[in-house]
Amino acid sequence: MTHTLKVLALNGSLKPSPEFSNTEDLIQLVLNYMAAVDGVVIESEVLRLADLNLELGVKAKMGPEDEWPAVSTKMLAADVVLFGTPIWWGGMSSLMQRVMERMDDFDEQYMRQGRNLLYNRVAGIVITGAEDGAQSIMGRLMSSLNFFGFTLPPEAVAYWVGEVGMYDPEDPEVRRRNRTTDMMAQKLATNLAFYAVLLKAWPLEFDAATKEKT
Amino acid sequence: MTHTLKVLALNGSLKPSPEFSNTEDLIQLVLNYMAAVDGVVIESEVLRLADLNLELGVKAKMGPEDEWPAVSTKMLAADVVLFGTPIWWGGMSSLMQRVMERMDDFDEQYMRQGRNLLYNRVAGIVITGAEDGAQSIMGRLMSSLNFFGFTLPPEAVAYWVGEVGMYDPEDPEVRRRNRTTDMMAQKLATNLAFYAVLLKAWPLEFDAATKEKT
Amino acid sequence: MTHTLKVLALNGSLKPSPEFSNTEDLIQLVLNYMAAVDGVVIESEVLRLADLNLELGVKAKMGPEDEWPAVSTKMLAADVVLFGTPIWWGGMSSLMQRVMERMDDFDEQYMRQGRNLLYNRVAGIVITGAEDGAQSIMGRLMSSLNFFGFTLPPEAVAYWVGEVGMYDPEDPEVRRRNRTTDMMAQKLATNLAFYAVLLKAWPLEFDAATKEKT
Amino acid sequence: MTHTLKVLALNGSLKPSPEFSNTEDLIQLVLNYMAAVDGVVIESEVLRLADLNLELGVKAKMGPEDEWPAVSTKMLAADVVLFGTPIWWGGMSSLMQRVMERMDDFDEQYMRQGRNLLYNRVAGIVITGAEDGAQSIMGRLMSSLNFFGFTLPPEAVAYWVGEVGMYDPEDPEVRRRNRTTDMMAQKLATNLAFYAVLLKAWPLEFDAATKEKT
Repeated sequence: MTHTLKVLALNGSLKPSPEFSNTEDLIQLVLNYMAAVDGVVIESEVLRLADLNLELGVKAKMGPEDEWPAVSTKMLAADVVLFGTPIWWGGMSSLMQRVMERMDDFDEQYMRQGRNLLYNRVAGIVITGAEDGAQSIMGRLMSSLNFFGFTLPPEAVAYWVGEVGMYDPEDPEVRRRNRTTDMMAQKLATNLAFYAVLLKAWPLEFDAATKEKT
Repeated sequence: MTHTLKVLALNGSLKPSPEFSNTEDLIQLVLNYMAAVDGVVIESEVLRLADLNLELGVKAKMGPEDEWPAVSTKMLAADVVLFGTPIWWGGMSSLMQRVMERMDDFDEQYMRQGRNLLYNRVAGIVITGAEDGAQSIMGRLMSSLNFFGFTLPPEAVAYWVGEVGMYDPEDPEVRRRNRTTDMMAQKLATNLAFYAVLLKAWPLEFDAATKEKT
Repeated sequence: MTHTLKVLALNGSLKPSPEFSNTEDLIQLVLNYMAAVDGVVIESEVLRLADLNLELGVKAKMGPEDEWPAVSTKMLAADVVLFGTPIWWGGMSSLMQRVMERMDDFDEQYMRQGRNLLYNRVAGIVITGAEDGAQSIMGRLMSSLNFFGFTLPPEAVAYWVGEVGMYDPEDPEVRRRNRTTDMMAQKLATNLAFYAVLLKAWPLEFDAATKEKT
Repeated sequence: MTHTLKVLALNGSLKPSPEFSNTEDLIQLVLNYMAAVDGVVIESEVLRLADLNLELGVKAKMGPEDEWPAVSTKMLAADVVLFGTPIWWGGMSSLMQRVMERMDDFDEQYMRQGRNLLYNRVAGIVITGAEDGAQSIMGRLMSSLNFFGFTLPPEAVAYWVGEVGMYDPEDPEVRRRNRTTDMMAQKLATNLAFYAVLLKAWPLEFDAATKEKT
């Protein structure tokens, strides 16, 4: 039996298309490994956040030019969401932090409706940085995504960081040669697929309001 | 059908038994809610880390007096592990950090054997603090527990923090009255039970070495 | 003798003027306490980041509409810079993270010229949040500001966070009544003034290239 | 004129003496650079925390065998304190976290006496890790040390981290060759010396109780 999984990947790079993005390159590697998982077909889309107009604020729509509603619709339709970000001064990019702020509206809806909208979706994380900070950002993202209702499979992250002061941290070949990052990408892909298939077959469907299983 | 779940709770409070521990009180609330989930029976044990001799180091056993081997054996036998810690100066307690260091040996075994020992176990987090730091510690714990192979269900945390400079942050009644913390405990219990039952029925069993599903 | 100190405050609130901002209200309290320090006169300016167009990127100027150059010029002219941010999902606001990204160019200039441009400037931090995360954000900001060359006086932060799930975290009166936050603001103001006066009188002027004191 | 500075260095390595410690090796490099600063003579002591019995708890003395009182006495007598720690699963070592917990008593004394005991002391940070997490730990330590009253000079940290999955992160030669880490150590030494001399000459002496300058 073949399972079709919809995968949405958000790339929080500061660079708009068509500039080369290390984060996107690693996202693509994870997508390739997902496509290679037995019994799984993926339909994927990668959004470069720097190409979009994600307005400031925490409401579902912040003005007529705001492109967040299109992103949130795609997120709700996905089985798997990949959050990819570079590291800037120890933090996720301002674009990925903007996504966290915009997702606040999901939490508002949860409070009003008693049901977490993102249950039964699986999240993965991709991080690239010059030399340091991946695990801290991973923790930041996991703590937020977990409250938003995502399921985080084991080994939910693929990252690359270089040695402190490394001469060529932006060179994609250095990262591509790194066997640990490659293994992380493969493991992440496998586990995302497993949990996504599992939750489609056996969804978490407790109705928070009535405590009845629907 | 009734599922029996083994739950191990680690309390990282700095206070040995029989002193009252706010962290343990909140752990107990989560256990009570787990016991109330339909179709689930729990067999639970709470270990107060301050009562144990967890030696310094990163090997499986660090000397004849070391009690970590008993803890790690119980962890491997559990379906659900609760990690409970107070907040001290923005961090998890030194006892819970010691647990992370001792779990490093699981990672060593993973590297040697190609299989993550803690797959198909579900982790939950309990944090109590005077006023600040729960989400940061939650992130720290999640990023480590995730690499160790645990599955983190949505809303994997119950925490209590008070207002900055609150007069009576140690008073358990203040915390017990807090409806948000109570709801977190209930949600955590429900989701731990759901994922633990799910993974017992449909375990993640890919063999990392052969890429064959066993 | 009276010392005149130029103070620049950046407010990273997501709300543009003239909406009420809790972060700005606490910034103003710190400025009031600074103005009350004996022997000190302050010339202050508060910039609401949501009112400015801070373009995405890490160059000194990112296009003709970019208002970062005006902000960076003011920062270099200041004796004291206050960084104020709300907490969103455990992180500083996307606007304050954007400031960190734009300050990256100071670091590029440092690498080229061998001198940290922001030496002898003193930084303070103001954080407001519903319930959690101030110390983690304080750490994030301090680790970045420290590399950028700022001096961080003891007790460099004034923050307010409420109890988890507090009913009215946005009500400024709740925060204004908090004696701990008030004392933090006063201490921050005093220490900022002391270190700013000190560094004007006795600046760190080692020439990194020659190791000679200029 | 020559200034004599007392420097206390705490090494939070998990390895007791006489095992080789990368953290201690980097601490020693910073001490060497401090000794080379013009006009400064240092009297330094390095304590290996793994050799000491730092009892669990938050009181000034936790039993007759507790060696924290000797450490805290040395800390209060020092002009400069170096906090050195390895990275374990994204956090400072359990020994360094234990130090933060024990320093809580300084804060208790501050609350009772209205004066921060550690004013006019300068802190520096040394971190070594296999591949990731230095800036996050730096932030954790800075946010705590700042509240404890230490002055953090610009560029207060020297760290080494390797590329993800690096084959030989424990090999000291790899770290010793790293020019960025070497420059950080030199800058840290220079700035610690400058601020320590400065604060001895012009101490922060506001009396918090009376608001009079003593």
